[in-house]
Amino acid sequence: MNLASLNTPAAIVDIDAMTRNIQRMQTRMNALGVQFRPHVKTTKCNQVVQAQLDAGAKGITVSTLKEAEQFFAAGIDDIVYAVAMAPNKLEQAMMLRRRGCRLKIVTDSVSSAQAIAAFGNTHAQAFEVWIEVDVDGHRSGIAPDDDLLLDVGRVLHEGGMRLGGVLAHAGSSYDYNSTDDLERIAEQERAGCVRAAERLRAAGLPCDTVSIGSTPTALAARHLEGVTEVRAGVYVFFDLVMHNVGVCATGDIALSVLTTVIGHQENKGWAIVDAGWMAMSRDRGTQRQQRDFGYGLVCNEEGVPLEGYVMSAANQEHGIVSRIGEPDTAIAARLPVGTRLRILPNHACATGAQHPAYHALSRDGTVSEWPRFYGW
Amino acid sequence: MNLASLNTPAAIVDIDAMTRNIQRMQTRMNALGVQFRPHVKTTKCNQVVQAQLDAGAKGITVSTLKEAEQFFAAGIDDIVYAVAMAPNKLEQAMMLRRRGCRLKIVTDSVSSAQAIAAFGNTHAQAFEVWIEVDVDGHRSGIAPDDDLLLDVGRVLHEGGMRLGGVLAHAGSSYDYNSTDDLERIAEQERAGCVRAAERLRAAGLPCDTVSIGSTPTALAARHLEGVTEVRAGVYVFFDLVMHNVGVCATGDIALSVLTTVIGHQENKGWAIVDAGWMAMSRDRGTQRQQRDFGYGLVCNEEGVPLEGYVMSAANQEHGIVSRIGEPDTAIAARLPVGTRLRILPNHACATGAQHPAYHALSRDGTVSEWPRFYGW
Repeated sequence: MNLASLNTPAAIVDIDAMTRNIQRMQTRMNALGVQFRPHVKTTKCNQVVQAQLDAGAKGITVSTLKEAEQFFAAGIDDIVYAVAMAPNKLEQAMMLRRRGCRLKIVTDSVSSAQAIAAFGNTHAQAFEVWIEVDVDGHRSGIAPDDDLLLDVGRVLHEGGMRLGGVLAHAGSSYDYNSTDDLERIAEQERAGCVRAAERLRAAGLPCDTVSIGSTPTALAARHLEGVTEVRAGVYVFFDLVMHNVGVCATGDIALSVLTTVIGHQENKGWAIVDAGWMAMSRDRGTQRQQRDFGYGLVCNEEGVPLEGYVMSAANQEHGIVSRIGEPDTAIAARLPVGTRLRILPNHACATGAQHPAYHALSRDGTVSEWPRFYGW
Repeated sequence: MNLASLNTPAAIVDIDAMTRNIQRMQTRMNALGVQFRPHVKTTKCNQVVQAQLDAGAKGITVSTLKEAEQFFAAGIDDIVYAVAMAPNKLEQAMMLRRRGCRLKIVTDSVSSAQAIAAFGNTHAQAFEVWIEVDVDGHRSGIAPDDDLLLDVGRVLHEGGMRLGGVLAHAGSSYDYNSTDDLERIAEQERAGCVRAAERLRAAGLPCDTVSIGSTPTALAARHLEGVTEVRAGVYVFFDLVMHNVGVCATGDIALSVLTTVIGHQENKGWAIVDAGWMAMSRDRGTQRQQRDFGYGLVCNEEGVPLEGYVMSAANQEHGIVSRIGEPDTAIAARLPVGTRLRILPNHACATGAQHPAYHALSRDGTVSEWPRFYGW
């Protein structure tokens, strides 16, 4: 199998770029003296995750219990489910633990902690629980100085659960694009999470793990004193949102969507392609960033950007490729029907999720199919 | 299986609402004297499509050849692939026809028509081809008065292909929300497509089928003189975009995402739920409409809207539910951890595509699993 033999649209992974991205992150984590626990929600793909582990990652982070089940079945037993635990999922989590999975679950509320402890005690299951810490007001978690932190810790610890640590994610790091801002938010993430751990310990509660991370902060942090592990996901492929944040070049983006030109509207300067939002996802993450790439940056079949050409609009199975600014009324001659292009995505996690498999492209031009799963 | 026994997030189909939507459209098409060919890209689900056929639909419309293969395997042989044909897909189309599928393919360019004729002649395959007509500048197709229409028709007809008809889709109908505008765009779609058919016939070319359609125009057209069939897809479930267009009530929306409250940020008035953009899709189709529903309208577990509450933001597996306007700082008491909600989606086609199966809810409260497929 090679690029020319693939049906379109297809999700292409450039193995060389992916390998460089994995090495870059792992080398950085080694230098900073922390363990690295990749977030596998980006790819949900055994081959990719195995490459991350082979490079030195310790354990994984998941966003669904289905990911935990699938990767546990693939032999990975050190797993953090990094979404606050819903009471109705406790049985599923317990079944994983009973089968030998060292699953860690997360909470940020007294009521959820109580539900975990009650269920755990009823079923003689001492869940390992990490408390989610809010370091930037981005989403969920407990602010480091909020006494709720200690309340939740006590409910778990005194309720017989194993209070294993604290976990933070500076999701607001995606909103910045300068080194200074990224270093500042990285330090805020580190300091806030360490502060939460220190408060728990000062209250006599256990807190071994201090887990932080996002791709921008992991790549910007100057030191990680007090942190034991870092989590990041999208760095493995990168994407145009990360390019706008300033943490990768377009040449580092390992995921693209192979597509075929199927028609034109010449007077408008449009080429119509057979990748629409079903293949790219509806993610418009660059819309409010410094450079809006529409639904993606257009490259030739070799993956070299056609500067100034983007997927400017998308329907379900149609994409409109056009030049930014002055319409290219010669686009039908430039990109005739049958031309194959590759589109770099705004958001690798969202684009990958639209595809049953990646097509992994080696340096020698051969392509392997790497399945990925979806659903809950 | 019932709602209470489902894991979350889950895609719920209200069978009663779906059945009403199917009846409404089919009754209208019968009254207008045209055949109805539903677009199955919305659901990719055998149970839904069978209900459409049982109600009187004739044949189906697909957006990918995978849909054609899957539904042909399920016994449906009258299929239009309504995306302009890429030369590299001709072999796949031919294999379907050789197995007995009455597949119709589409083109809007001389170069693609030439490729179809050349391939067809090489393989002794007289493809049935429809010419795509552009009635509103929305996307692809040939304007009815453009002589390119006749050129493409001649390439196909004289090249030995079966020129079966013309096909138009007034995609711009989604941009309107008044009866007058919808009736006007419906008439524009009808008249433009009929005009194209008449020009082909006047040039001595065959053109049996005149196929138009979109959900808004199908529901707005006052007459369909000269039209032989209508296509529409999203009407089967409807969604918030269609609600904003004005062609359905929220009570008609048959698809929702069941989710569980997993935490709160009380001072912000946020409830955090376990459905994020992975479950809702990234579709923000209501963003530029008369009412922006964020990532969806929040309902209780029975499907009754909590007026004023929307999913205001979404990450991959986290949704933020909040009240529009004044924050609801009592939201943790109103929607405690463990509360189950149903979220009506912006765009049923996009939301369904995120789920491996629908959970179809009967009037008696029982739930059946209806698988759907994805990919290409």
